[in-house]
Amino acid sequence: MKDEFWFKEFHHKGFYIGFKKKKVLKEFKSKYQKIEVFYNEFWGNVLILDGLVMITEKDEFFYHEAIAHPPLFVSEKPKRVLIIGGGDGGTLREVLKHNVESADLVEIDEAVINVSKEFFPDIAASFTDKRANIITEDGVRFLEKTENKYDVIIVDSSEPFGPSSVLFTRKFYSLMKDKISDSGVISAQLGSYLFHKKFISEFFKEIKDLFKDSYLYTGITPTYPGGLWTYGIFSKKNLIKDSVWKKDIQTKYYNELIFKGSLKSEI
Amino acid sequence: MKDEFWFKEFHHKGFYIGFKKKKVLKEFKSKYQKIEVFYNEFWGNVLILDGLVMITEKDEFFYHEAIAHPPLFVSEKPKRVLIIGGGDGGTLREVLKHNVESADLVEIDEAVINVSKEFFPDIAASFTDKRANIITEDGVRFLEKTENKYDVIIVDSSEPFGPSSVLFTRKFYSLMKDKISDSGVISAQLGSYLFHKKFISEFFKEIKDLFKDSYLYTGITPTYPGGLWTYGIFSKKNLIKDSVWKKDIQTKYYNELIFKGSLKSEI
Repeated sequence: MKDEFWFKEFHHKGFYIGFKKKKVLKEFKSKYQKIEVFYNEFWGNVLILDGLVMITEKDEFFYHEAIAHPPLFVSEKPKRVLIIGGGDGGTLREVLKHNVESADLVEIDEAVINVSKEFFPDIAASFTDKRANIITEDGVRFLEKTENKYDVIIVDSSEPFGPSSVLFTRKFYSLMKDKISDSGVISAQLGSYLFHKKFISEFFKEIKDLFKDSYLYTGITPTYPGGLWTYGIFSKKNLIKDSVWKKDIQTKYYNELIFKGSLKSEI
Repeated sequence: MKDEFWFKEFHHKGFYIGFKKKKVLKEFKSKYQKIEVFYNEFWGNVLILDGLVMITEKDEFFYHEAIAHPPLFVSEKPKRVLIIGGGDGGTLREVLKHNVESADLVEIDEAVINVSKEFFPDIAASFTDKRANIITEDGVRFLEKTENKYDVIIVDSSEPFGPSSVLFTRKFYSLMKDKISDSGVISAQLGSYLFHKKFISEFFKEIKDLFKDSYLYTGITPTYPGGLWTYGIFSKKNLIKDSVWKKDIQTKYYNELIFKGSLKSEI
């Protein structure tokens, strides 16, 4: 079991997961982060950013379904959607299952988009949808200057350090609030339910009063630390618990009951 | 990172989880299996049977809540409960939150019960409840000779090989059917939603017609392969989807919506 054939992600100094790199497909430093793609016999192609698993072909749908559908259903008739981050295209794919007019994806690192096109073509297929606008830019700068109002903003970022740290601030949530419509809804990935509980709890307390209705919720993510991921959802007008999920949107796992059963006011 | 300080469980030849053994607390062979207990800084005490993680102090409640509450709520007013396996006492603890008259726990390996008393005292506290009867015997043999009728049977076994393999047969489910009351309900752990999908799918097809209503359902289990666990639930009379969950039973994570949202007729 030679170390160079294994990728290890430590979730804690006493706990990690190990993926055999059956074949290393790409390994380089972009302007923003270290990017690695390898093939694993169970999970398929695996994307690593700065040493953390972002997506695997086999289980990415769990995460993307959970971050995308809740805000779209809570906002009722979303027309304009903004995704901040999400450069692999998985969240975009789920968004485009809804009857939206446009979906802007603002990813800071063009290299992530290119890697997805090359090694995750089924996911990256969403980039070619005529409703999708792919913008390579800093999410905060884009929001500051845009005159658009969005019905839904989804913050599909990496962890709260490095390029994504500015996305975990009250200032950023105030900015998003200015850029959503009166019935606008925001969702964001916040971290591991088990490993990042303290951070999530404190950050949520810091921002929840900005919106009429705010919740934490969870979804399964097999290859993320602890298997259970936490998201935040923030609504300017509608009550999140009252959202009605249309039956014509097909998902592989996530659904209305799992979402509503996982809603929490604190963790 | 010397190997002797790490416990590794391979979920696939190309994927494993590693726990640092901060302190080895016990390591021996019982009559039935290899038993190991160690302390991990994140998960607390960890119980390993034949090389597989059974429980950790930190996350055991996810599994035990999911296996215990669904059959108890589906059966409406359960009085007599039988747990087959479950020698750590976690399922028993959840069962005893309900207003049951008796809970028989039939564990084949007395050593598991003793290890739980020694290293998981909070969980094993359930053994001392006056409604609990702890029986050290082979589950199949116990069922064959008992004249009891149970309202709920919970099969909290280890994996479908070694001592537990007889619990994954149509014959065993026919036997359980004979020993449940007219409104009886059975639940059982069936394996990993991702890693054991084929086995679960085939086994469920083999047994589901024995009962009026049969479903697969899932729950999170952070330290089990893939983080998402599959259970079966089988009802002789009541419709599983119509179950009403009383609000006075407190759980840390699992609940009626998460259960109902996860029900599947096949995987």
